[in-house]
Amino acid sequence: MTSTRKGIERRLWNKALALSAVMLLSACTNLRGTGDLGVVIERASGRVQVIEHSTHSRLATVDGLGDLSHASVVYSRDGRFAYVFGRDGGLSKVDLLRGRLVKRVLQAGNSIGGAVSQDGRLLAVSNYEPGGVRVFDAATLAPVADIPALDGRGNASKVVGLVDAPGNRFVFSLYDAGEIWIADLSIPAAPRLTKYTDVGRQPYDALITPDGRYYVAGLFGEDGMALVDLWHPERGVRRVLDDYGRGEQKLPVYKMPHLEGWAIAGEYAFVPAVGQHAVLVIDRREWRQIARIPVHGQPVFVMGRPDGRQVWVNFAHPHNDTLQVIDVDTLQIAKTLRPGKAVLHMEFTPRGEALWVSVRDEDRVDVYDTRSFERLAALPAAKPSGIFFTARAHRIGL
Amino acid sequence: MTSTRKGIERRLWNKALALSAVMLLSACTNLRGTGDLGVVIERASGRVQVIEHSTHSRLATVDGLGDLSHASVVYSRDGRFAYVFGRDGGLSKVDLLRGRLVKRVLQAGNSIGGAVSQDGRLLAVSNYEPGGVRVFDAATLAPVADIPALDGRGNASKVVGLVDAPGNRFVFSLYDAGEIWIADLSIPAAPRLTKYTDVGRQPYDALITPDGRYYVAGLFGEDGMALVDLWHPERGVRRVLDDYGRGEQKLPVYKMPHLEGWAIAGEYAFVPAVGQHAVLVIDRREWRQIARIPVHGQPVFVMGRPDGRQVWVNFAHPHNDTLQVIDVDTLQIAKTLRPGKAVLHMEFTPRGEALWVSVRDEDRVDVYDTRSFERLAALPAAKPSGIFFTARAHRIGL
Repeated sequence: MTSTRKGIERRLWNKALALSAVMLLSACTNLRGTGDLGVVIERASGRVQVIEHSTHSRLATVDGLGDLSHASVVYSRDGRFAYVFGRDGGLSKVDLLRGRLVKRVLQAGNSIGGAVSQDGRLLAVSNYEPGGVRVFDAATLAPVADIPALDGRGNASKVVGLVDAPGNRFVFSLYDAGEIWIADLSIPAAPRLTKYTDVGRQPYDALITPDGRYYVAGLFGEDGMALVDLWHPERGVRRVLDDYGRGEQKLPVYKMPHLEGWAIAGEYAFVPAVGQHAVLVIDRREWRQIARIPVHGQPVFVMGRPDGRQVWVNFAHPHNDTLQVIDVDTLQIAKTLRPGKAVLHMEFTPRGEALWVSVRDEDRVDVYDTRSFERLAALPAAKPSGIFFTARAHRIGL
Repeated sequence: MTSTRKGIERRLWNKALALSAVMLLSACTNLRGTGDLGVVIERASGRVQVIEHSTHSRLATVDGLGDLSHASVVYSRDGRFAYVFGRDGGLSKVDLLRGRLVKRVLQAGNSIGGAVSQDGRLLAVSNYEPGGVRVFDAATLAPVADIPALDGRGNASKVVGLVDAPGNRFVFSLYDAGEIWIADLSIPAAPRLTKYTDVGRQPYDALITPDGRYYVAGLFGEDGMALVDLWHPERGVRRVLDDYGRGEQKLPVYKMPHLEGWAIAGEYAFVPAVGQHAVLVIDRREWRQIARIPVHGQPVFVMGRPDGRQVWVNFAHPHNDTLQVIDVDTLQIAKTLRPGKAVLHMEFTPRGEALWVSVRDEDRVDVYDTRSFERLAALPAAKPSGIFFTARAHRIGL
């Protein structure tokens, strides 16, 4: 009897240990660093892939994120959580380590973009419909503040070009009102607003320089851009690049270029020309055009490799099967690549040795070596669009 | 009998499940992002603290790292592993998530610094004794390549100022030989070397600009600096800042300033003057001094906040209880702080909202809000020196 009991105990014990080991293994395989993670938006499926860019692999797929036809992503400051802003006003928090959706709120009827505050505690979402900016707690997604975008006459405005800036500030533009606002969220529930009116007709998108100093809004309703120096908000808005825009001829514009795609490389900014087959080179000290580089089509994203030596460009339909690489030193095209139909977005690895490319109509994400231009990997993805790596958590204005 | 046996089985099973749960819990509590982690060197104890900077807390202590009296740290590209280069030639790999030493090799008799390649696969360590650079596999710490630093006559040289550069290159200086070498590790076991001779007497330290383009070595044996444009290695070494150094008067220099402490902010570089109570402002386009800012003592580290709006400075003995903050816009001292005795090192959070400060003789690490200058936290630490956050994994030249 004793020996039988001991036998049972031993067998059960061994079984329990084996079970523990299996549970441990399955639960802890996702114990890993988050510095080389990212997400790829699968725009047609309301889904994101969680990927890692050290060995080019897919770790998980997370769905139920709603309409991602125009989605953007920011990260928690530890790099574990992705916040996905969807077209339908959905704000989703995705746990990259567990590969699952933590929380999702439908914060408005129609949103266009978002940002995370410098301290990582607040998320701001800009809305087309009903307009305005809503601010959420990044940990819980609980609402913190609501900033209606009403002009002087009380009319609601679409909000575009929302970015974060140092000092827990957000900066954004009011499309209909033609205004730029700075919201200081030092006291999260009581935003302090600085408003600039008459900045130009229909600001449609904006960028902030990587140091968080200059906010530049593009204008849909006229040529030129509106610039705010955030070191000197008291100086107001300055008009720069008066020729930038659709110009006199009003060429057909297949897609207004994304301004967040501007490449800032050293003292130059590389800018997609509107409606033309050209990338413009701007001297950043004087915000003046100094060169014009003919390219393959109408540029959409113009992105600088992190070391500033190369600028990669994708194009609007019907030239969107192509990528071109500009050598910043010579301002010449160094390489033309044809990844396939509908090259929608690109993301560099943090130190720039590789570039990930979404090729929507080929259902593929390609990885290129930026030095040899060799294709290192190709990953299947359903209608991929935006690619966003966790290193963004550590950058200003992304 | 059956029921007894079933009873025993049930009790044992429950016990086993409880045990599994406990094991799971203890093993997986360290499932977390690594983007807000870092290490603090406890120089006298051969130990590092693993910290996180979202809520200012210590997560673990890892000891057995040898002589850390002059230590530096780089990170794996996923941010999980810290590589600690010790004074005794020790190279240690620390797992931040598990809070333990993974591996340690004694690679040379006396080392001074190290770097990680752009692709994260290689570690390079520079040595005083026996001199030269050794290259290791970042995953296993197995030796990959050995680069003896012999001048044209076959004499061994101390190696200093080792940094990584884009294209899986390392750049370093030979103190005794007066040379600068570029090692291209595209084929890891067969480094291709480019050597510049007669760069100046006794290069003692160096920096690379954040874009990885310019390598600048300081000279101990004469005034001036040696600059290599890595976009144009064929152009050779250029001498710049001819007045930089100890000058005619040969003032007593309590501590040669670290060049890696140079702050690159926009078009300016902020540079510690040697032996003088001043920070020099250099125009980066022409590498020419344009201003001189009087400060509290002989500067050691001159570090730019990530947005480039502030530069923080600590000082050599006997003024090393003080920190000063320069406003980059006005080039004036914006703030003077006295954290306590022996302020040795500083590290900004990735987006610059806070600064961590080692106060060695107070056995404390302080955290400051960089906007209000308020002290946010103080953590106990035994003789802390270097502070290194994982965001360095994503930067060039750190």
